Amino acid sequence: MTDDVEVDSATDSAPRHLAPDDVGLVSPRDFVYAEPFTFKSGQTLPGFTLRYETYGSLNATRDNAVLICHALSGDHHCAGWHSPTDRKPGWWNNLIGPGKAVDTRRFFVVCANVLGGCQGSTGPSSTNPVTGRPYGVEFPFVTIRDMVRAQKLLLDHLGVAELHGVIGGSMGGMQALIFAIKFPHFTRRVLAMATTARESAQAIAFNEVGRQAIMQDPAWNHGDYPKDGGPRVGLAIARMMAHITYVSDASMDRKFGRRKKTEATNGDSYNFDVQFEVEGYLRHQGQSFINRFDANSYLYITRALDQFDLAQIYGSLEEAFAPVEADTLVVGFTSDWLFPPEQNRALALALLRARKRASYAELATDLGHDSFLLESDELYTLVRGFLERDQLFTFDYAI
Amino acid sequence: MTDDVEVDSATDSAPRHLAPDDVGLVSPRDFVYAEPFTFKSGQTLPGFTLRYETYGSLNATRDNAVLICHALSGDHHCAGWHSPTDRKPGWWNNLIGPGKAVDTRRFFVVCANVLGGCQGSTGPSSTNPVTGRPYGVEFPFVTIRDMVRAQKLLLDHLGVAELHGVIGGSMGGMQALIFAIKFPHFTRRVLAMATTARESAQAIAFNEVGRQAIMQDPAWNHGDYPKDGGPRVGLAIARMMAHITYVSDASMDRKFGRRKKTEATNGDSYNFDVQFEVEGYLRHQGQSFINRFDANSYLYITRALDQFDLAQIYGSLEEAFAPVEADTLVVGFTSDWLFPPEQNRALALALLRARKRASYAELATDLGHDSFLLESDELYTLVRGFLERDQLFTFDYAI
Repeated sequence: MTDDVEVDSATDSAPRHLAPDDVGLVSPRDFVYAEPFTFKSGQTLPGFTLRYETYGSLNATRDNAVLICHALSGDHHCAGWHSPTDRKPGWWNNLIGPGKAVDTRRFFVVCANVLGGCQGSTGPSSTNPVTGRPYGVEFPFVTIRDMVRAQKLLLDHLGVAELHGVIGGSMGGMQALIFAIKFPHFTRRVLAMATTARESAQAIAFNEVGRQAIMQDPAWNHGDYPKDGGPRVGLAIARMMAHITYVSDASMDRKFGRRKKTEATNGDSYNFDVQFEVEGYLRHQGQSFINRFDANSYLYITRALDQFDLAQIYGSLEEAFAPVEADTLVVGFTSDWLFPPEQNRALALALLRARKRASYAELATDLGHDSFLLESDELYTLVRGFLERDQLFTFDYAI
Repeated sequence: MTDDVEVDSATDSAPRHLAPDDVGLVSPRDFVYAEPFTFKSGQTLPGFTLRYETYGSLNATRDNAVLICHALSGDHHCAGWHSPTDRKPGWWNNLIGPGKAVDTRRFFVVCANVLGGCQGSTGPSSTNPVTGRPYGVEFPFVTIRDMVRAQKLLLDHLGVAELHGVIGGSMGGMQALIFAIKFPHFTRRVLAMATTARESAQAIAFNEVGRQAIMQDPAWNHGDYPKDGGPRVGLAIARMMAHITYVSDASMDRKFGRRKKTEATNGDSYNFDVQFEVEGYLRHQGQSFINRFDANSYLYITRALDQFDLAQIYGSLEEAFAPVEADTLVVGFTSDWLFPPEQNRALALALLRARKRASYAELATDLGHDSFLLESDELYTLVRGFLERDQLFTFDYAI
């Protein structure tokens, strides 16, 4: 997912003059789990930290929590502002707040940076207590299931008795599905968007090119690099390419088309500098990413994405979904060519075949994979309706 | 376009046992143009060389020539074999030969490596006579029109009085269109496939990521590198990514799906080595490319692609096509998401609006942009019919 989605309301509502439906100033906290944690790979850590944020309050029956799961490059800061001078709010601020689709007057919203990440949670850039240096590729391999197990420990720590809902797009959607599968009595509603039961060869291919860009950058040095160094060139290339897959041809054409930078001559400029606006935009995407993301985390998390395959893990999609007790809503976006609508629909169909309460909605957007992040009243209505109805489904929805 | 398209007939027909419709052993030749040549950029060369091949014979009226224009990474070797031990024939061997769709018993087939290329024609890797070293980025900027003007000089040199036809896919299609526009009395038939009047923002974006991968590789050294050195890492990354855009999600899924390499465990392997077959395939694509292609040529030719914009150059598509006298057939492929069918159809529609004899065919394939290179009886029938009918169109085809 992109960090630089331009949400107009966000820029309009500067932190000093917060909109009434903004969660306002927020602070991250750290959950330190001090017990040994064994990964699916069999590797272990003596413990881990998850950085997280919460908005709203846990109710007396401790059953109003909504967990937000972030995508590849996201983090725990999904709503509000860290300081009055922040240029941008949390990445899902348009969705989450008092009176918004995920209503923090009603729900206790929790969002954690994933295990293996680099925004405060334990990951390859964390210090290995044995060596005093970053883990690098000595960090255990992480799977989506490991990420979910770590988040469950956080929710236990917070006293959450059961999840009112878990919501995520892209990799966040994968985590949401795993919650329903692994913790069926705990997970009452799953809202998975722009996601898949498993990546196609094309999606694996794009991730592999990104990993190669990083690993073939000499500064990667087999994963051993100082905190502020590392394969910045390779990581920027990986990000530029990945960004193209998060949007759509139509949205790029509408936003940039073939417009030239003003410095360029009216006709062609004969050099390899930025000539088209879209080139400058992409370079900016790459450059801003390397200042906030760790290259080894990028390797680990893309690998977790590629290895996620519900049918392979559980035998079949139907077997995967057999334990599910949650109500499930899967949302696909017509212009998403990374995890296209049919892959989302297939999830809902498999849930129905497994005789679960599932429905599928397809939203017509031309914004590509990142559609789940963008402003859409239709999406807000879907999310609010799914979270707020008291009556759970009493019949299987037809698709 | 890919070099590694697997054409079964090609491997079946080893050069020692040539099929009767194979052009057999062929040799490239060099056309040396010793006059000054001024590029569209205003830059000049004291002369240039084009490496080319021909198959079949020019007839007495010198009007049976068919020019083949190659795509980004193609070359002059489009049919036959250079030696009996060649592993693969020319890149369009399935289309060109005695009795094939482009019948060399009837037509004098010409194919040249483009100006700015690196397969024997003058380009950035050629020696600059002033310095005694490769031109590098001192080479003049090349446009599609420059490529076409250079090929026209070759055709004049070969004594071709008029082109029976010009055929190209992707960048080759752009050249074919420019032939019809710039040399209307000379160009009788244009067959442009999987092409566009101008790239979308997404196509520019992919090219830009490839250029950045090359230019940010320290070995690029501002374009100044020895012949066998240069930014091999960056070029391989660029190629891996570009290759994904030449095929389709469906074809990658059919060919590789999520199959693991045999070395990998049955389940997940927890490392960053090749795990999925598609990863190994892509790495091979990158590695084989760096042994045959020059990184600076890649920069120049992708820039030429990005700058190609018929409406911008000529005022509008209709004005661009106003001089055309050729019969034109545009072919789009349903699964081509780089230059999608609608961009091909738009070319034919603009030709019709300009009151030209044009038609459009759309072939249902799931092979992506590279569909024009692959075996297809439907395509062969279209090409043969277009080239061989004696009667040119007498009316505008409806689309």
